[in-house]
Amino acid sequence: MKERPEIRSSEGKLGVLLPGFGAVATTLVAGVEAVRRGLAAPVGSLTQMQTIRLGKRTDARTPLIKDFVDLASLDQLVFGAWDPIPDDGYASAVNAGVLDRHEHLEPIRDFLESIVPMPAAFDPEYVKKLQGSNVKSGPNKRDLAEQIRADIRTFKEEQGCERCVMVWCGSTEIFLRPGAQHETLEAFEKAMEENDPGIAPSMLYAYAAIMEGVPYANGAPNLSADFPALEKAAVERGVPIGGKDFKTGQTLMKTILAPGFKARMIGLRGWFSTNILGNRDGEVLDDPASFKTKEESKLGVLEHILQPKMYPELYEDLYHKVRINYYPPRGDNKEGWDNIDIFGWLGYPMQIKVDFLCRDSILAAPIVLDLALFLDLASRAGMGGIQEWLSFYFKSPQTTPGLYPEHDIFIQHWKLKNTLRWMMGEDQITHLGQDYE
Amino acid sequence: MKERPEIRSSEGKLGVLLPGFGAVATTLVAGVEAVRRGLAAPVGSLTQMQTIRLGKRTDARTPLIKDFVDLASLDQLVFGAWDPIPDDGYASAVNAGVLDRHEHLEPIRDFLESIVPMPAAFDPEYVKKLQGSNVKSGPNKRDLAEQIRADIRTFKEEQGCERCVMVWCGSTEIFLRPGAQHETLEAFEKAMEENDPGIAPSMLYAYAAIMEGVPYANGAPNLSADFPALEKAAVERGVPIGGKDFKTGQTLMKTILAPGFKARMIGLRGWFSTNILGNRDGEVLDDPASFKTKEESKLGVLEHILQPKMYPELYEDLYHKVRINYYPPRGDNKEGWDNIDIFGWLGYPMQIKVDFLCRDSILAAPIVLDLALFLDLASRAGMGGIQEWLSFYFKSPQTTPGLYPEHDIFIQHWKLKNTLRWMMGEDQITHLGQDYE
Amino acid sequence: MKERPEIRSSEGKLGVLLPGFGAVATTLVAGVEAVRRGLAAPVGSLTQMQTIRLGKRTDARTPLIKDFVDLASLDQLVFGAWDPIPDDGYASAVNAGVLDRHEHLEPIRDFLESIVPMPAAFDPEYVKKLQGSNVKSGPNKRDLAEQIRADIRTFKEEQGCERCVMVWCGSTEIFLRPGAQHETLEAFEKAMEENDPGIAPSMLYAYAAIMEGVPYANGAPNLSADFPALEKAAVERGVPIGGKDFKTGQTLMKTILAPGFKARMIGLRGWFSTNILGNRDGEVLDDPASFKTKEESKLGVLEHILQPKMYPELYEDLYHKVRINYYPPRGDNKEGWDNIDIFGWLGYPMQIKVDFLCRDSILAAPIVLDLALFLDLASRAGMGGIQEWLSFYFKSPQTTPGLYPEHDIFIQHWKLKNTLRWMMGEDQITHLGQDYE
Amino acid sequence: MKERPEIRSSEGKLGVLLPGFGAVATTLVAGVEAVRRGLAAPVGSLTQMQTIRLGKRTDARTPLIKDFVDLASLDQLVFGAWDPIPDDGYASAVNAGVLDRHEHLEPIRDFLESIVPMPAAFDPEYVKKLQGSNVKSGPNKRDLAEQIRADIRTFKEEQGCERCVMVWCGSTEIFLRPGAQHETLEAFEKAMEENDPGIAPSMLYAYAAIMEGVPYANGAPNLSADFPALEKAAVERGVPIGGKDFKTGQTLMKTILAPGFKARMIGLRGWFSTNILGNRDGEVLDDPASFKTKEESKLGVLEHILQPKMYPELYEDLYHKVRINYYPPRGDNKEGWDNIDIFGWLGYPMQIKVDFLCRDSILAAPIVLDLALFLDLASRAGMGGIQEWLSFYFKSPQTTPGLYPEHDIFIQHWKLKNTLRWMMGEDQITHLGQDYE
Repeated sequence: MKERPEIRSSEGKLGVLLPGFGAVATTLVAGVEAVRRGLAAPVGSLTQMQTIRLGKRTDARTPLIKDFVDLASLDQLVFGAWDPIPDDGYASAVNAGVLDRHEHLEPIRDFLESIVPMPAAFDPEYVKKLQGSNVKSGPNKRDLAEQIRADIRTFKEEQGCERCVMVWCGSTEIFLRPGAQHETLEAFEKAMEENDPGIAPSMLYAYAAIMEGVPYANGAPNLSADFPALEKAAVERGVPIGGKDFKTGQTLMKTILAPGFKARMIGLRGWFSTNILGNRDGEVLDDPASFKTKEESKLGVLEHILQPKMYPELYEDLYHKVRINYYPPRGDNKEGWDNIDIFGWLGYPMQIKVDFLCRDSILAAPIVLDLALFLDLASRAGMGGIQEWLSFYFKSPQTTPGLYPEHDIFIQHWKLKNTLRWMMGEDQITHLGQDYE
Repeated sequence: MKERPEIRSSEGKLGVLLPGFGAVATTLVAGVEAVRRGLAAPVGSLTQMQTIRLGKRTDARTPLIKDFVDLASLDQLVFGAWDPIPDDGYASAVNAGVLDRHEHLEPIRDFLESIVPMPAAFDPEYVKKLQGSNVKSGPNKRDLAEQIRADIRTFKEEQGCERCVMVWCGSTEIFLRPGAQHETLEAFEKAMEENDPGIAPSMLYAYAAIMEGVPYANGAPNLSADFPALEKAAVERGVPIGGKDFKTGQTLMKTILAPGFKARMIGLRGWFSTNILGNRDGEVLDDPASFKTKEESKLGVLEHILQPKMYPELYEDLYHKVRINYYPPRGDNKEGWDNIDIFGWLGYPMQIKVDFLCRDSILAAPIVLDLALFLDLASRAGMGGIQEWLSFYFKSPQTTPGLYPEHDIFIQHWKLKNTLRWMMGEDQITHLGQDYE
Repeated sequence: MKERPEIRSSEGKLGVLLPGFGAVATTLVAGVEAVRRGLAAPVGSLTQMQTIRLGKRTDARTPLIKDFVDLASLDQLVFGAWDPIPDDGYASAVNAGVLDRHEHLEPIRDFLESIVPMPAAFDPEYVKKLQGSNVKSGPNKRDLAEQIRADIRTFKEEQGCERCVMVWCGSTEIFLRPGAQHETLEAFEKAMEENDPGIAPSMLYAYAAIMEGVPYANGAPNLSADFPALEKAAVERGVPIGGKDFKTGQTLMKTILAPGFKARMIGLRGWFSTNILGNRDGEVLDDPASFKTKEESKLGVLEHILQPKMYPELYEDLYHKVRINYYPPRGDNKEGWDNIDIFGWLGYPMQIKVDFLCRDSILAAPIVLDLALFLDLASRAGMGGIQEWLSFYFKSPQTTPGLYPEHDIFIQHWKLKNTLRWMMGEDQITHLGQDYE
Repeated sequence: MKERPEIRSSEGKLGVLLPGFGAVATTLVAGVEAVRRGLAAPVGSLTQMQTIRLGKRTDARTPLIKDFVDLASLDQLVFGAWDPIPDDGYASAVNAGVLDRHEHLEPIRDFLESIVPMPAAFDPEYVKKLQGSNVKSGPNKRDLAEQIRADIRTFKEEQGCERCVMVWCGSTEIFLRPGAQHETLEAFEKAMEENDPGIAPSMLYAYAAIMEGVPYANGAPNLSADFPALEKAAVERGVPIGGKDFKTGQTLMKTILAPGFKARMIGLRGWFSTNILGNRDGEVLDDPASFKTKEESKLGVLEHILQPKMYPELYEDLYHKVRINYYPPRGDNKEGWDNIDIFGWLGYPMQIKVDFLCRDSILAAPIVLDLALFLDLASRAGMGGIQEWLSFYFKSPQTTPGLYPEHDIFIQHWKLKNTLRWMMGEDQITHLGQDYE
């Protein structure tokens, strides 16, 4: 086992930079402020609320994670954002319709209005259903990337930040595959200069962050930093990165349920998932090119959990279908209906229906917070490159080449906590239970 | 960590003794025979189908469990049963209506007809809605217990069994609390002699098994072996025991979902569970006294998983309600509908509805098989007393006094597999992932 | 066919008197005011929004009902109420939690605060889970009834009302059967004087209304006016009455679906209905005696629609079960889950699940409005006694002795509209369609 | 009102001709035989099981429909079929997987094997996912139509039929709009001769039937007989016709629920319908061209029932979406999930979810039977052209030009029964209820 790392102190302001300042980002920002003022609880956040068991079961040592590892506190956070739509945090949050205006936005209106998004590196070619006036212009994509780098430096200085992290909260871009232009940093920089169509805006942010030594997490299924050029750059520069696609809603449920079926060797014949959603996200995904990016992200989940090659009798013939439907009456809420066809002893069929009346941004906001704080921790611990132990938060975890992604949320959770134990020099937990461990 | 045990060979016939020869038991017996003849797969059984990862993730060592530990094979199994209704295995299976008569019962009719239940130690006082003619009589409960012991010895000899295991597949008895008569073996034996009303039939089977050195598992929520007198006897005699109440249906789903919510720090305000079922089980549970036994078993699950004391903001105010309804049109199938009121970031509510069109016996049969084979393994490894590592299979896991039961199905699964690794001298798996473990 | 009646003018103020000033009544009152101010639409109200087709299909004559018959307009309405809890309309509406405080209650706060409930004739013996301080006292039940009569007269005079109507919006009382004391007016009055336990508070209101010539509708399943003494009194005095139990939620769905199944000769094997609700209503129904009253009201519905005697092959073996569960997390909302086991051609089974995320008071408020206006119309048309044509609004329609209640909501609707046509001398609609009627 | 018609006797054999011999047709045929042998009940059939009320409510005259009007009995029926796949009735029924092989097909295997489909006029251009070897060939479409006419004459003679009826039970064809070639019989015949691509196979069957004086009903959403040329031909020749698309499953539920919402003036904001089905039908509808035909048929339903022009506040903004998904694990069964967003008093939203575990062929078979018998009745009564009174059975009722289709299943049912009353000279039922009619 690798030796545990040394961890630098979390002192000083931490800048949280958010490309995309819509429903998710404003729900995060408003929520952090509400929590700071004691108006609400940061439900859904491990860094704020979860405990961690240390030692044997009978030792009764279970501190809060935030008391166990040295994380930046909420009071240290300052927020910056980019968005093609120029609305400030208040206007954007009201428009998103996630948080109750009377109860949660009005009381912190001043704070929200103070956050005005910087002009975005945005190109409607990559998100067909969106338009915006608050956009950067420049001779080529490399130039736009340099503008983002400058934004980061300016923000850091103006806000007096010790460190920054960046979490992509923007839209799903069209489907792209990594090519030669994504192999090396040189090729990538050249492609930016040549306005290569394989370079999407989210990649410019990832590049800018990594070059500035700012940890980067990707909340959408976009490639963004998921290719060799940026992965290597992150390792070389000691910058932690993580992705892709926040694990919320239906996929969250899938990665909870599927490990349960597999643990009990219950077979699966079919899994039909349909979603209805009525917000900007739904509109963006109504474009087939964006939908394909999302679909790939959603479909991979089951195969990796179920291991059909290892269990052909149980999972090889699984018919898995995912549908996303733009349905305006659902508004910002989202609903996922799953029909799951399972089978048991001698192949006898059973059915499970799950109807999830869900709120995406409510589930995503605490993920953004945790990723920001954990990436900052990893950075201070000198852990560069892909942070596999943060797979817990992603629909499509990025992995070191040659390794398969872990989708089982319980193994992911284990890994996260055992990594924290390892970082602090505590014993790994195995739940063996002999001698009442 | 305790040293790994020595394990005696599994050679010879293994008698599987089943008090209760209704839907679950006949589904097990018919299924084992169908699998032996290559007609169907033992879906749901870890001992038959699951693999176990050994060593590091990159080692690619994942044998089947049954190739890793020395388990009795299906060909070694012979079955015996007791039931107050004298129907043979074929008649009982047809009446249960679980397996398709044409496809799965007719082809093995001879085999099923050859299993005729022995007269049961049965008392309608403890299962109010059942009646039967195939019952033992005797001067007192102790005498009935001795008759069961004699049955075991006779069965073992007549069938030429090397070893036996017993798994309770009978009905839910009325609610009982352990008292003074359950404290010591002496008190318990005296209470049997005095026909103490606190002694239910399922206890007589447990007692008989333990005294005969036969491992005992309890598939119903009845006390049965869950009290000091029999626990101590099991430890002293080196007899493995386990219970209570097979984890199937709605509770299975609960112990899959609740750990998922908790892992993500998602709060719970309410969980309403209703069941409709139309078979003998439903009829038995229509009696309030039997229902109470079941309800206690079902209600405890969430509290232990969620740890409301540790997470008061998230789980202290959870309103948990379980309803069971006898509804004849559902026949042998069962349906569980759950409404789950969760909340996320800043306390915003979401809802999940789960409709499980389930088949209890199909989910229970492989549990009986696994328990039989694993208890036999434990017996050959000299592991007496409560087998906490088999909690995976139970709604209300029995635990060593002073320890809390583990209900999280994923921790239970981990414990089961790490126990097997420990028994075979393999490294524990921690999923740390540093150095690509 | 009877000759059409003469109808007196609707001029002048109409007092709407509401025994029970909780969720339903305040939702009505606040809503009427919001509609009067042009802030919202009276959705769910036939008197305000529905049209009626006159003549042949090709005539294109479809006026609004309120333009076709002479109804009191919303501007003519003034409200009075009784309640054991002294909260004014604003406090009670806030507590009920039905209407959005910011959007719908604050703007009309003055109006709502101006309605203060008169002391109620209330007895916790009949509604076990409620308590209140705003109650009448008197030597016997007759005296309480006389106090209510005096309240009516005072209200009418003080408010300058031309006419009044009364609609019971209070709680469900314990189950009572009509007896000798309900046979004649004399017996009933004597029983009131003797404080007969068979006389529940809701009967006192009904009696007071009828004696004052005020039409009376009963929105709960309580007997109230559903017995010979008051029925005869209503006929003799020319006072229209109607009941029982507002048709909302699950029962509304049932009376929509069941006629559909029957029209298509689809068989029914089982119908399982469970409700979860968390408000005062749910608490009251947690008392078994009140539940029984409600259950009787809910169970009768299917039998009358399906006519199992006429269709024994399809409906005789129907297993119908209704469950109501107090579940506080649901708050004022209500959820009904139905599992319906149907069968078709050759008896093959199919299943339907209906999950209704419902709001009782939102569905009930327009019913109160329609009943008030239609009863006033009937009164002006000289139609005394049970108004069978208003069965449309009730779970358990009161009927003239010897006739069976009509539960099919579509036949009820037909009857309502054909009655209006008859009152105005228009042809009945038959939908024959020959000659393009 | 038109005078009631004279009706010729139903004596003699009635040939029931079925283009399309798959799941629906074999389920019909097997079922009729099972009913004839007393093995099962014709559930879902009005002609076999429904009663009709005559006179006043107090008259208690409610004969079975089949005892009230002179219908052909099941014993008089003989069956013929066409299909591009040459399987006989037994092979086709086994392949369809609708009826239980052991219980319902084996006992009548001889009968089913005796029905062998005639070669079909089939063209994969119009049903892209199907292929078949049992097809007619000829120089042009007119010739194919003449071959069908010859088939009809031969069948009638060989089977000794007095009369025939034809009901389309084949697949959904690609979407077509009526054009100039569908205006007059001459144009239509010329287009057939010229192999006009606007002429689909189902039109050839409709043409052949009408020219042979055989009533024709269309169970798919195909144009078939729904254009002026064939409508006029049917009127001139006195041949009853009806269509389109059997009303089963989700649309059946829609036309039951929507009239209920409208009767109560409950608003609708959205209706999202998704279907999963795994049989041939699902495969055919996986082709976008066939899906469009089906979608048009399914979407029209709500608008006609709800009349958004008349009720703009309630129904103008309804967002209605229908999805059909090919999902093989569902097999021949079908599942429809509906999310319905309704609103009530002051616009407050509520939600209804309907999950229908449905069997299409089980719902469709009795419709085929009723249409055959009622069309034969109409024919004997001299009622040529579109039979609007049979709209009850169709998703997209054909109507006389200039009239709107009636989709409300309860009005359709009324119309059907009042038409029968009119044919027999009985009073129309109005449910007025004055004088206890």
